[in-house]
Amino acid sequence: MSQKPSIPKGTRDFGPLEMARRNYIFDTIRQVYARYGFRQIETPAMENLSTLMGKYGEEGDKLLFKILNSGDFRSSVTAEDYAADSAARLAARFCDRGLRYDLTVPFARYVVQHREELQMPFKRYQIQPVWRADRPQKGRYREFYQCDADTVGSDSLLCEVELMQMVDEVFRRLGIRVCIKINNRKILTGIAQTLGAADKIVDITVAIDKLDKIGLEGVNAELRSAGLADEAISRLQPIIALSGSNADKLETMRTVLAESEEGLKGIDEVAFVLDSLRGADLTNAIEFDLTLARGLNYYTGCIFEVKALDVEIGSITGGGRYDNLTGIFGLPGLSGVGISFGADRIYDVLDRLSLYPDNARSGADLLFINFGAAEAAHCLGLARQARAAGIATEVYPDSAKMKKQMAYANALGIPFVAMVGETEMAEGRVSLKDMATGEQASLTIDEVIAKIKG
Amino acid sequence: MSQKPSIPKGTRDFGPLEMARRNYIFDTIRQVYARYGFRQIETPAMENLSTLMGKYGEEGDKLLFKILNSGDFRSSVTAEDYAADSAARLAARFCDRGLRYDLTVPFARYVVQHREELQMPFKRYQIQPVWRADRPQKGRYREFYQCDADTVGSDSLLCEVELMQMVDEVFRRLGIRVCIKINNRKILTGIAQTLGAADKIVDITVAIDKLDKIGLEGVNAELRSAGLADEAISRLQPIIALSGSNADKLETMRTVLAESEEGLKGIDEVAFVLDSLRGADLTNAIEFDLTLARGLNYYTGCIFEVKALDVEIGSITGGGRYDNLTGIFGLPGLSGVGISFGADRIYDVLDRLSLYPDNARSGADLLFINFGAAEAAHCLGLARQARAAGIATEVYPDSAKMKKQMAYANALGIPFVAMVGETEMAEGRVSLKDMATGEQASLTIDEVIAKIKG
Repeated sequence: MSQKPSIPKGTRDFGPLEMARRNYIFDTIRQVYARYGFRQIETPAMENLSTLMGKYGEEGDKLLFKILNSGDFRSSVTAEDYAADSAARLAARFCDRGLRYDLTVPFARYVVQHREELQMPFKRYQIQPVWRADRPQKGRYREFYQCDADTVGSDSLLCEVELMQMVDEVFRRLGIRVCIKINNRKILTGIAQTLGAADKIVDITVAIDKLDKIGLEGVNAELRSAGLADEAISRLQPIIALSGSNADKLETMRTVLAESEEGLKGIDEVAFVLDSLRGADLTNAIEFDLTLARGLNYYTGCIFEVKALDVEIGSITGGGRYDNLTGIFGLPGLSGVGISFGADRIYDVLDRLSLYPDNARSGADLLFINFGAAEAAHCLGLARQARAAGIATEVYPDSAKMKKQMAYANALGIPFVAMVGETEMAEGRVSLKDMATGEQASLTIDEVIAKIKG
Repeated sequence: MSQKPSIPKGTRDFGPLEMARRNYIFDTIRQVYARYGFRQIETPAMENLSTLMGKYGEEGDKLLFKILNSGDFRSSVTAEDYAADSAARLAARFCDRGLRYDLTVPFARYVVQHREELQMPFKRYQIQPVWRADRPQKGRYREFYQCDADTVGSDSLLCEVELMQMVDEVFRRLGIRVCIKINNRKILTGIAQTLGAADKIVDITVAIDKLDKIGLEGVNAELRSAGLADEAISRLQPIIALSGSNADKLETMRTVLAESEEGLKGIDEVAFVLDSLRGADLTNAIEFDLTLARGLNYYTGCIFEVKALDVEIGSITGGGRYDNLTGIFGLPGLSGVGISFGADRIYDVLDRLSLYPDNARSGADLLFINFGAAEAAHCLGLARQARAAGIATEVYPDSAKMKKQMAYANALGIPFVAMVGETEMAEGRVSLKDMATGEQASLTIDEVIAKIKG
């Protein structure tokens, strides 16, 4: 009992300051999503395991948190079965439910389950925690938030355009300078087709991505050791050396992929998105990047990724178009495109760059010092007036030593402290201390309100 | 696969409209909490089972959702143990973690774990889901939100006063007429002491509560069958007949409990809270109600409960003072007082009384109809201007039939639809349709913005 209590490995408590900062991030994302007409949904923390299993690969199945059935969970498993069965199979017999692993599969389930009520295209956003039984390590948690927006039921590229505008606006509002990268799965397929090396596309993008580090010869050596024929490597040279503006790159690719219908379609898609964004006055650069190859098993069209320019950290936002999200639940043919902001990494970026605004703090604006019962009773009325004017206000509950009450204001970063003793009460005034400057002034409550709001 | 997917019994999906309405409730509560200087925290969904077990009684232990350990959860349990052990003990061996059952125990754990960082008094609020393996029924869910505010580290009754002001303000803002009831555990203890029937206090309050339904004779008969002596029943008569203003009731109780020091202390406490609230200009009535006897194992001072006046539904908010919240985790002597808003019931009340404001909806303010590629490209720019002016705006992504696009606007409750065809493009104008009135006007984009914002 006297041992200090703790929380499970890989989980976190968020104190008031962290919450204020996290809310600043979430609210920014939420406001931008809403500004573009995306609508929020929430799904339960628990899903049936039948919904989750088999959706994240074999490794993913292992990382699902499973919930023991209530009551006699053993009922269908004899001691013989218990001894003979594998842990995985037993888990599946003891547990009907699991915690969601991401927001994508629950969203697909939601769309299929509610399809009769939904108006297509359906633009939804969802900001909720997910759980993974990963080995905890720096920056990787077992409980973390995802902030997803998806449009399903339209294959229009205007959806991609809109997502890129939203990404730009979120980072503009947060003050984080980023590079938005775009690629297209169809271009990668086109390259593989052109080279006759469909199974090598990941090796190829990984190798090309190292150009800056290991040089052209290094890249070619790596491609060779990945098993690519010399002829294919030679045809890859213009791609490896791809440079210039987005338009230059697209033009080069159009020549290289001239034979691949799918590759050309991918180029058209990227070109359309970039063209449409030309007038959109984006704050951040958007860059066509062939080496971007995220979610290849999953995405079928455009792929996006966002990198912070001023902090070394992985991708802080990503997404793409998929054509078969709901197929696994029996509703094929619904195209969708989505993005997901990585709240934890964005938090770290803002932290390292000290980009939190002053109002991402958690304390009140005004504290009334408690000088005793009569003074406190008087201050309750003044506090009421301040609150009615929109000022977050506290009355210290105990008539503790002045030093202790001031320490409280300091610790919480409360910017103004009001002292109302006998004299002030009699005069109908407030001694207001500005905690930043140390200045003190005798004011009426209306003047206090005006000063704090001004 | 073709079977429609579903979610676990007792859990819910929240669609866009429900989310808009839930957010309206949560935001209202959050704003009031913040206005009084309460600061938000969040704790993990999972706690160690050692934190949760034994805190909610034997029944509560059974209602905890337990999470199967990852990997080989069987390692310490042989087939013999499996056959011989009880389901409850096996569950404890297979599972180290469980989902939180309420916000109170995790908060106590948080306070003890972080006590060195915390400035006392600590005023925190927390709005998060909790999970209980209860049998689902109407209005009772296995996943639901709690909205708690607590002040720990002060035994000042000003904390109670503040909570009552907050309760009043939340319901004033929501437009729900309520009665706030207050009682004090010490008064109930005083009654039991005075009667020499300490174990009968629940029977007594339950019986008195039925006065309106079964009359004085009925109440006395019930007290008799609960085993109360005639002499005690006779001494209870002034309590049963208690009526009049709060001041009248307190005065009567002061006479009845003249012999009980603790009882008198309870009366003083209630009197102080009511006196302090006299100048607070509450919108709702606050009533001293002796029959209020919630959380008797738990609360040690004031007890509160809120009932809606215009809807038959149970308590929609409750709380009280406790003196030993953190004692179970090895930190005794920390007094606290808290309230908890029942978001699901408040939702039902607002629903039944149709009290949701117009802006508790989920769709955009403005939809641009898509007449084709060139028009859509033009509309992207106009949409950008509308968004920059703070208007939630969509461009329909596909150049679908007009009827389909209008149906979309209707289904989502989008109040304004903008049509920009070739003519409007050429003239630099927008045909704006007000969906409520059906009126249509030819406007510049600036006029559109002014109209929607005005």
